[in-house]
Amino acid sequence: MAFRVMSINSLKQATLLGELLARSFSTGPKNIGFVGLGNMGHAMASNLISKGHKLHVFDISADAKDALKAKGATTYDNVSELSKASDFVVTMLPNNDIVANTYDSILAGGINTSTFFIDSSTIDPNVAKAVQQKVKAAGATFVDAPVSGGVPGAKNATLTFMVGGTADEYETVKGILEGMGKKITHCGGYGMGQAAKVCNNMMLGISMCGLAECMNLAIRLGLDPKVFADIINASTGRSWASEINNPVPGVIPTAPAANSYAGGFATGLITKDLGIASAVATTTNTPIPLGALTHQIYRTLMAKGLANKDFSVVYDFIKNDKA
Amino acid sequence: MAFRVMSINSLKQATLLGELLARSFSTGPKNIGFVGLGNMGHAMASNLISKGHKLHVFDISADAKDALKAKGATTYDNVSELSKASDFVVTMLPNNDIVANTYDSILAGGINTSTFFIDSSTIDPNVAKAVQQKVKAAGATFVDAPVSGGVPGAKNATLTFMVGGTADEYETVKGILEGMGKKITHCGGYGMGQAAKVCNNMMLGISMCGLAECMNLAIRLGLDPKVFADIINASTGRSWASEINNPVPGVIPTAPAANSYAGGFATGLITKDLGIASAVATTTNTPIPLGALTHQIYRTLMAKGLANKDFSVVYDFIKNDKA
Amino acid sequence: MAFRVMSINSLKQATLLGELLARSFSTGPKNIGFVGLGNMGHAMASNLISKGHKLHVFDISADAKDALKAKGATTYDNVSELSKASDFVVTMLPNNDIVANTYDSILAGGINTSTFFIDSSTIDPNVAKAVQQKVKAAGATFVDAPVSGGVPGAKNATLTFMVGGTADEYETVKGILEGMGKKITHCGGYGMGQAAKVCNNMMLGISMCGLAECMNLAIRLGLDPKVFADIINASTGRSWASEINNPVPGVIPTAPAANSYAGGFATGLITKDLGIASAVATTTNTPIPLGALTHQIYRTLMAKGLANKDFSVVYDFIKNDKA
Amino acid sequence: MAFRVMSINSLKQATLLGELLARSFSTGPKNIGFVGLGNMGHAMASNLISKGHKLHVFDISADAKDALKAKGATTYDNVSELSKASDFVVTMLPNNDIVANTYDSILAGGINTSTFFIDSSTIDPNVAKAVQQKVKAAGATFVDAPVSGGVPGAKNATLTFMVGGTADEYETVKGILEGMGKKITHCGGYGMGQAAKVCNNMMLGISMCGLAECMNLAIRLGLDPKVFADIINASTGRSWASEINNPVPGVIPTAPAANSYAGGFATGLITKDLGIASAVATTTNTPIPLGALTHQIYRTLMAKGLANKDFSVVYDFIKNDKA
Repeated sequence: MAFRVMSINSLKQATLLGELLARSFSTGPKNIGFVGLGNMGHAMASNLISKGHKLHVFDISADAKDALKAKGATTYDNVSELSKASDFVVTMLPNNDIVANTYDSILAGGINTSTFFIDSSTIDPNVAKAVQQKVKAAGATFVDAPVSGGVPGAKNATLTFMVGGTADEYETVKGILEGMGKKITHCGGYGMGQAAKVCNNMMLGISMCGLAECMNLAIRLGLDPKVFADIINASTGRSWASEINNPVPGVIPTAPAANSYAGGFATGLITKDLGIASAVATTTNTPIPLGALTHQIYRTLMAKGLANKDFSVVYDFIKNDKA
Repeated sequence: MAFRVMSINSLKQATLLGELLARSFSTGPKNIGFVGLGNMGHAMASNLISKGHKLHVFDISADAKDALKAKGATTYDNVSELSKASDFVVTMLPNNDIVANTYDSILAGGINTSTFFIDSSTIDPNVAKAVQQKVKAAGATFVDAPVSGGVPGAKNATLTFMVGGTADEYETVKGILEGMGKKITHCGGYGMGQAAKVCNNMMLGISMCGLAECMNLAIRLGLDPKVFADIINASTGRSWASEINNPVPGVIPTAPAANSYAGGFATGLITKDLGIASAVATTTNTPIPLGALTHQIYRTLMAKGLANKDFSVVYDFIKNDKA
Repeated sequence: MAFRVMSINSLKQATLLGELLARSFSTGPKNIGFVGLGNMGHAMASNLISKGHKLHVFDISADAKDALKAKGATTYDNVSELSKASDFVVTMLPNNDIVANTYDSILAGGINTSTFFIDSSTIDPNVAKAVQQKVKAAGATFVDAPVSGGVPGAKNATLTFMVGGTADEYETVKGILEGMGKKITHCGGYGMGQAAKVCNNMMLGISMCGLAECMNLAIRLGLDPKVFADIINASTGRSWASEINNPVPGVIPTAPAANSYAGGFATGLITKDLGIASAVATTTNTPIPLGALTHQIYRTLMAKGLANKDFSVVYDFIKNDKA
Repeated sequence: MAFRVMSINSLKQATLLGELLARSFSTGPKNIGFVGLGNMGHAMASNLISKGHKLHVFDISADAKDALKAKGATTYDNVSELSKASDFVVTMLPNNDIVANTYDSILAGGINTSTFFIDSSTIDPNVAKAVQQKVKAAGATFVDAPVSGGVPGAKNATLTFMVGGTADEYETVKGILEGMGKKITHCGGYGMGQAAKVCNNMMLGISMCGLAECMNLAIRLGLDPKVFADIINASTGRSWASEINNPVPGVIPTAPAANSYAGGFATGLITKDLGIASAVATTTNTPIPLGALTHQIYRTLMAKGLANKDFSVVYDFIKNDKA
């Protein structure tokens, strides 16, 4: 993608930029706080350790902290203390409320204004903006930087980061994020990382549900699924879903569909992302007919107990067994 | 795509194959009938003339016939006489009923059993199957071979043909179709060309409507449309629509959106294709929630007078002007 | 409803009217043909016998014919012979094609121009119009008169008939139909009986699906289902579905929901009706977003093997068990 | 509706009940605070004055306060002072955030524990529950009591109130609410008034959109709108919308459709209510396919500038003008 040329409007900014660049590109290891050590967070923090950074970690689970301690991290009982010890803090948390509460706790304990906060959770862009304002008010820096790529991407340090912040801030965090991912994208101002993620994932959900319908219809009309998959991939109907994650078992040997829909991107997670899309569409009064219907379809799959299956399981759900 | 190995089960088939191959690969020009000389048909027939074939043409419009006559074609008042003069007959007609009636007229007048009929109209796969059976009962050969690529593809002989018939029949028509297109795909048995087209185009419609929603939401959340388009194209939300025909004016300079949605693939045509998808989904009792909703959305655009605009105009329709 | 005043425009019509009235209101029993003796047809024909009419019956099932023979009907192997013996012929058949083929068979054998044909099947209004034109061309009279009320209404002679035809024709058939139903409605010209039925039933399907969602949401928010049912029935959300056929078990003791969704109006039948609605919406390019989505929802229920359950089973389908 | 018999489980409750009844049924006028004096609030507060109560009022608009002052109310600059002067406080505010903030302001200033708070705004049931807990923690009483009936109902004191609270609290507020409405319904515990309203209104929106589609389809198939309206009202498709607010101009002379969709229930308000439904469906993971699609349809109408028209304007929006 085409990044924007940084504009330096004032001496103050230039000075700030200088500081930021200095911090980012200094050769020595950084002190990095990491809050939220689930499957994603554990792998991301581990990669930072292996890059030579010194990690300061917190999770509500003692086991989760111990697992990082075993790799050399320092553990904390208190996110404020953790923050004070860190040049950068990465938060990787499950939802809006937990992110908001965590930053409230951090700020309540007082922070160093030189600490740079990076939230890699997937949350409502408006919550991201609100947290940024609070952190800024306290004198420090905050960007949103949600990821795509899932647990495999986290383990292999091949995540994509979508960063919302100023161009300078993007440049500053880029080096740190490259320790956990392969592609670091600047999406725009505060909240725009979250906005990009939620809009991309809404499209992903629509593509997958649509593809499941089309594959099912094709098969019921008599087409061979592999033949039709080849046709659609060479035609105007192609998409990431059709090329990489075809939902019909056997079409793509490496896809979750070939493995009882295990692994991949869970139905519960796409449903969460569609819930965020739905909420911001309501806030901005934006019509999203297909997005909303896709949300309801995935919600129905949740109701049927499929939350942990790859989201391509929608094919299995809609294919006709009885009529 | 992986084509199937031809199986030759009997001497009779082998003999037939020999005849077909002989007919197809003979070096001299063929007599080719062409019924339906609209924008698509005119261009396709013209290409066949330029490849050296002798054209026998019919259309309900005298002007349409005269335009081909000026290029060297012989004109007919009667599709049956046309067929009798032709080795191959290509039909390129607007809908189910006109295709069915045209073949009824052809068959009513008697046919040569050596004539090979190719229907390149976009119709219901079941109608294609029914016509094939009638032609077969009369002793001749029929395949469905709908196209994608639109008027530009027809003019430049770069159409994709989706062929439904036996492997032998596919091989036979391939040479003829290559005079009008670049990619000739074998989709399966009779009707499967139509099935492939309708399922691909249903996916295309869903992708475009979904993309229009996502672009609109992204913009309303504050993302720059070009930046977000780059992100989605590098992510799991990408599709043919996002890469080639982004519906937001200015994102892709060559897309219809940049030209007031002129040219491209008309809303009226995607609506027609979604109508066929809807009909075959009803026949086969196949759930197509997103396909059906997309159909209704395009139908609404039709009701608003947008039938002749490129189908990416759905973005213009759903973007918020007032709220 | 307000019926239209009959206008008698000409002597010819007046004479015809006289004949029709004479036929209708004569005191003696009529010869009535009945084609299609399924659950509905058997009950309807039986009621006509009990009203004193002489029945001439046909069905593809010998058992179905025998069951009427046991009640005094004359059985036929041939619908044309049956028609020639009848003053009125009622057809009660499963779908468009069977209706069209049956009338083709009747007409192929020659008919009395004095015979009055009544089709009580539920079919596409356009098919009804086409059959009317064929019957008229053969010199006889045809109206569409689909029913609502189901098997119980058929058994108890409490069906509603929706008649499409002229005002005179409506008056003529009214007396006959009153032998099988309680309410005989004149909906307009040919096909309008079918149009009224399909539009009403599309609304019914939408209401039921919508109600199932609302009841489920209400319950999941903590409302008592009976309390909320009372509220909605006293409010702007009320409908026939909410008052008579609440889909939540236990809310209405007499509703199918209270009996494992047995009896009532089968999912297979509402799906068929929504298929007709979908087809005529395509023909007329009429946007039906909720109708189309409801169609897909019921189609999904079919795919899950619920075709024979009352259509209120949609509540059972969408309620959350797992999330 | 069937109200529940009050159960008195303990002396403490009995005593409380006694106090509440005493407060409610005492003959003298009450001091009633009223916060939010828009179209609805002004009319409601005026009715309370005319019933003999002493009103203490607040609004952010000085004009709104002055209008009530002219009718005898005491005006306040501070909601906390207002509350301290009141036996009952009614809040009638536009959205979640304003309700939450208003109660925060009231509680921050300290309250009399004997004051009984009634929120008649339409908000998320979860926000209502949260406010109730805060008010309870401060020692006072709170119920949610949203209304239906619109501005005419407010003016004529014919509103329906949907009360969420204990049976005792319901009995206590009933007398007060009867000064502003005709029907006071007990929906269940805290938040259940809001839950009932949002679920009823989701059904209302679905009914109206569905009816608009059905009327449009009926008309396009050739049915007379009045004739079809009569049929549907006597059939299984009937609903409040079809009986009272048919969206086709001319079918019901008193409906907004007959008056360019002026008056009635604004598209902006049903869209707001559907937004609440959507949010609580997300919170509870409840599938609402038709509700969500209806939400998007109304959102599209908002985007087209129809926010202030009666919500039956959806018919005008979807009817075909051009195809």
